[in-house]
Amino acid sequence: MPKKDTALRIIPLGGLDGIGKNMTAFEYGDDMVLVDAGLMFPDDDQPGIDLILPDYTYVLENEDKLRGIIITHGHEDHIGALPYLLADLTRKVPIFSSKLTLGMIEGKLSEFPSVKAPKYREVTDGSTITLGAFTISLFRMTHSIPAALGVFMSTPAGTVLHTGDFKLDQTPIDGQQPNYHAINQFGAQGVDLLLSDSTNATRPGFTPSESAVGPALRHIIKNAPGRVFVASFSSHIHRLQQICDASVAVGRKVVVTGRSMLTNTKVARELGYLNIADDDIVDAYDIDRVPDEKIVVMCTGSQGEPLSALARMANGEHKSLSIHESDTVIISATPVPGNEKSVQAIVNALSKIGCDIYDKNRALVHVSGHGSSEELKLMLAMAQPRYFMPVHGEAQHLRAHAALGRASGIPEDRIFILDNGDSLEMVKHKVRRGHAVESGVVYVDGGTVTEANPVVLRDRDKLAQDGVVTCTVVLSKRGRSATVEIASRGVAASTDEMLAAEGQRLVRAQVDKLVGSGAANVDALRRGVRNSLSNQLWSKTHARPMIIPVVMEV
Amino acid sequence: MPKKDTALRIIPLGGLDGIGKNMTAFEYGDDMVLVDAGLMFPDDDQPGIDLILPDYTYVLENEDKLRGIIITHGHEDHIGALPYLLADLTRKVPIFSSKLTLGMIEGKLSEFPSVKAPKYREVTDGSTITLGAFTISLFRMTHSIPAALGVFMSTPAGTVLHTGDFKLDQTPIDGQQPNYHAINQFGAQGVDLLLSDSTNATRPGFTPSESAVGPALRHIIKNAPGRVFVASFSSHIHRLQQICDASVAVGRKVVVTGRSMLTNTKVARELGYLNIADDDIVDAYDIDRVPDEKIVVMCTGSQGEPLSALARMANGEHKSLSIHESDTVIISATPVPGNEKSVQAIVNALSKIGCDIYDKNRALVHVSGHGSSEELKLMLAMAQPRYFMPVHGEAQHLRAHAALGRASGIPEDRIFILDNGDSLEMVKHKVRRGHAVESGVVYVDGGTVTEANPVVLRDRDKLAQDGVVTCTVVLSKRGRSATVEIASRGVAASTDEMLAAEGQRLVRAQVDKLVGSGAANVDALRRGVRNSLSNQLWSKTHARPMIIPVVMEV
Repeated sequence: MPKKDTALRIIPLGGLDGIGKNMTAFEYGDDMVLVDAGLMFPDDDQPGIDLILPDYTYVLENEDKLRGIIITHGHEDHIGALPYLLADLTRKVPIFSSKLTLGMIEGKLSEFPSVKAPKYREVTDGSTITLGAFTISLFRMTHSIPAALGVFMSTPAGTVLHTGDFKLDQTPIDGQQPNYHAINQFGAQGVDLLLSDSTNATRPGFTPSESAVGPALRHIIKNAPGRVFVASFSSHIHRLQQICDASVAVGRKVVVTGRSMLTNTKVARELGYLNIADDDIVDAYDIDRVPDEKIVVMCTGSQGEPLSALARMANGEHKSLSIHESDTVIISATPVPGNEKSVQAIVNALSKIGCDIYDKNRALVHVSGHGSSEELKLMLAMAQPRYFMPVHGEAQHLRAHAALGRASGIPEDRIFILDNGDSLEMVKHKVRRGHAVESGVVYVDGGTVTEANPVVLRDRDKLAQDGVVTCTVVLSKRGRSATVEIASRGVAASTDEMLAAEGQRLVRAQVDKLVGSGAANVDALRRGVRNSLSNQLWSKTHARPMIIPVVMEV
Repeated sequence: MPKKDTALRIIPLGGLDGIGKNMTAFEYGDDMVLVDAGLMFPDDDQPGIDLILPDYTYVLENEDKLRGIIITHGHEDHIGALPYLLADLTRKVPIFSSKLTLGMIEGKLSEFPSVKAPKYREVTDGSTITLGAFTISLFRMTHSIPAALGVFMSTPAGTVLHTGDFKLDQTPIDGQQPNYHAINQFGAQGVDLLLSDSTNATRPGFTPSESAVGPALRHIIKNAPGRVFVASFSSHIHRLQQICDASVAVGRKVVVTGRSMLTNTKVARELGYLNIADDDIVDAYDIDRVPDEKIVVMCTGSQGEPLSALARMANGEHKSLSIHESDTVIISATPVPGNEKSVQAIVNALSKIGCDIYDKNRALVHVSGHGSSEELKLMLAMAQPRYFMPVHGEAQHLRAHAALGRASGIPEDRIFILDNGDSLEMVKHKVRRGHAVESGVVYVDGGTVTEANPVVLRDRDKLAQDGVVTCTVVLSKRGRSATVEIASRGVAASTDEMLAAEGQRLVRAQVDKLVGSGAANVDALRRGVRNSLSNQLWSKTHARPMIIPVVMEV
């Protein structure tokens, strides 16, 4: 039985260094609860990396304490690390979330046959569960995916309110507003620490309701002369519902294309989150049986993904669908930072086709799923937290959110901006900084999970910049004779010319010199060969390809 | 003497596939004039490429006709290809431009000592020059760099108005408004073909005047408690002037840092385009002699360039300057598409320092240098062209500009959207499509100009994704014995493990098999070794590193 002054430790393992890989551990005595287990997608700084996961070593080291994993909603940055975490856990740990989220997790895990199915525990708005010393209440929030939940946890040391990702939408598509009663009740009861979504903390005002998108979609779909193609996030079920509703309302059939769009619409319809009659859906292969002005195609590709349905159609590479000059394309999304150029590339391809293109700059065809400043201040006002930790954002967002906290009357010294792996300790409702735990990132690279290795990434970057030159030197034990072979890939033409012209001679001269000097051990030869080639290449062509010298004695 | 029905050929060699490498050839009989010679910066699709140039083979093939090169203004996408073009020309061709632009070209060429200095011919608003059959008038335009010129050319076949890059600024910083009189005079006299800047064709309304930025800059600089750092384009002399004016007005000294910022302010001050007294400028090394609240630092880095002054300062790596919590940073620019993430990385680094950050979303600290829809329609209304070719933009921009042309009353069939290398022919004031010429892009790679080679880029991309494995097999002529050595760079850890565990065995088995079967020629062995390794790696680790097999007989 934990002592009265046992500390509740709050340990963010991810989500504080960018939008992605959200994972927070809550530990009290011998009990631990994990909230979310997300991934992050790599960018140009991580060439060849498939996925980025939070380093959850601390969770594994304390697996015996782990009572359950709570997932707030079904976005990849909240569920994407689950298959890897579950594979590393030796026990079956229960996963608590809403029906839709569990459905999406099940779908994801089906791609990892080696991972044993976890214990799924469906919870919903108003559910209360007890996990060791934790009493946890779930409450409904609104976000760009249905069935998002916030988490309120009570422990002997105090209480924590974790908003999850949210906006405050008074007119959500499913009519399920945020549970303000619950939030205010928690606030009245006493929220010692608030963890709140910082994504849009730099944006003034109030994020428009998801339902604000409907009229624009309906108007465009109604007046389009030909087919309408709408690209959106496949997990944004409420957006898809509005696209379907607008289509049905104007007598158009809906065609669904794109792998994740097909999967998610199937799951969402089965679980009752997406409502459209079978008659109103047409298979892509049957599309020619329906006149163009009676068709709406719901597709993936809103982020410019080169293999997405929209990209294939824009480039005339889709197996069953094509876009024509008389068609209309709606990009019902905004590019995630880093995707701007790929999206623009698709827009240019569509412009060459000559079709009519709508994006959020031309019409209100997209709104954010994250609350802006006024919503974040409203949350602070309702929760009335004694301490505040902004989460879910880049450095700029966390600091902007902290400023909103100060503006809301929380003293500077009660606002904590942490790095992943830092921790907070709550004792008797008082919060202070605690010790850090092992943290960081691990990469999924070549299909396997691996430590982040800067050398590998540096090498890949160098290879991408200037290519590679291999130089093989074979020395016969029986004497001086050396055979040299040089090969290259991805190098500038001038590099190949230089190598062809003088590479062999250069290497031989170097080898003879070293062998002659008697300093002909293999390492010395490797170094000598590499240096002579690299110096010559630099002085002749200002290229620095990676040089791999192989020296063998036979 | 050319016949009366000789055609004026208009040949865009660059600038129609994106914002960059602008270059257009105008050819009449035995005379050719080139307008602009710009470069484009590579993106992720061109790993390791230094610069992208238009393929100007056609210009070289017709060098004997080339009477002169007209440069509209000093931005890299208009002058950057000059050092390479001039190096490839056998004759000294005169370059016509304004004083500032020529100064910038001279500065650029000084970095290419091997290139002989061209004949510089200074022109200005109102200048008229005769180049063979071309009578060319230059007129003043406003843009995000001073001394920008538009070009009006008369030939026996008809007239062409080339706007160059422009916005229509009634209150430019130097008071030098666009020469509306000239434009309208050309319009009255008859513009057969208009080439006009499409960059902002998708933007509604009228781009704000450059002078709109002044008050915001002054307000922020005046009220900043500590040092103020302003990042901007170093060629945006009018922006720099406003920063200097605001600083001097509130009694602050100006520190200039960043290589191009130092060069351009020097040139601009020498030529009288940037006015600030020596007393008001402080060297970076003397900054500590001035109190923080009396300092404004004008720096490079508005695009998030990792080696720029702002990046170094934000990361604490600048040799003489550092940014503190009490300081203010103004990013007086907007990220060029593709640079969003690098700019955000600097903003995050600055956020961690805790300084106050302003960008265009928070205050009017930046306006575009390109005219929006209303300005483009105004240009069409003043020039009253009979034919219209949108230039300077991506596919989306060219088509949006064409729509503005139709809205302005130009018949669809008189609006031409071309690809680089296409041409128009004007005969007796009538314009039609002409034959295409050799065109495309050439890369500056490893310091040398080279044909765009897709294989090299594919290889570099592959190397960046999965790294490289070299496998050397040495066969002794005297029999079966084979020596095998395997090396790798930039591969996933799992790949190295697999290679260490079974690479040697795998390769030997393959070699023995082939040698045994008598099919042991070197090529067969190379293929065999590559395939066995690559299949095994794929099945074990789902990685596809590039495999370079080297097989030698000694």
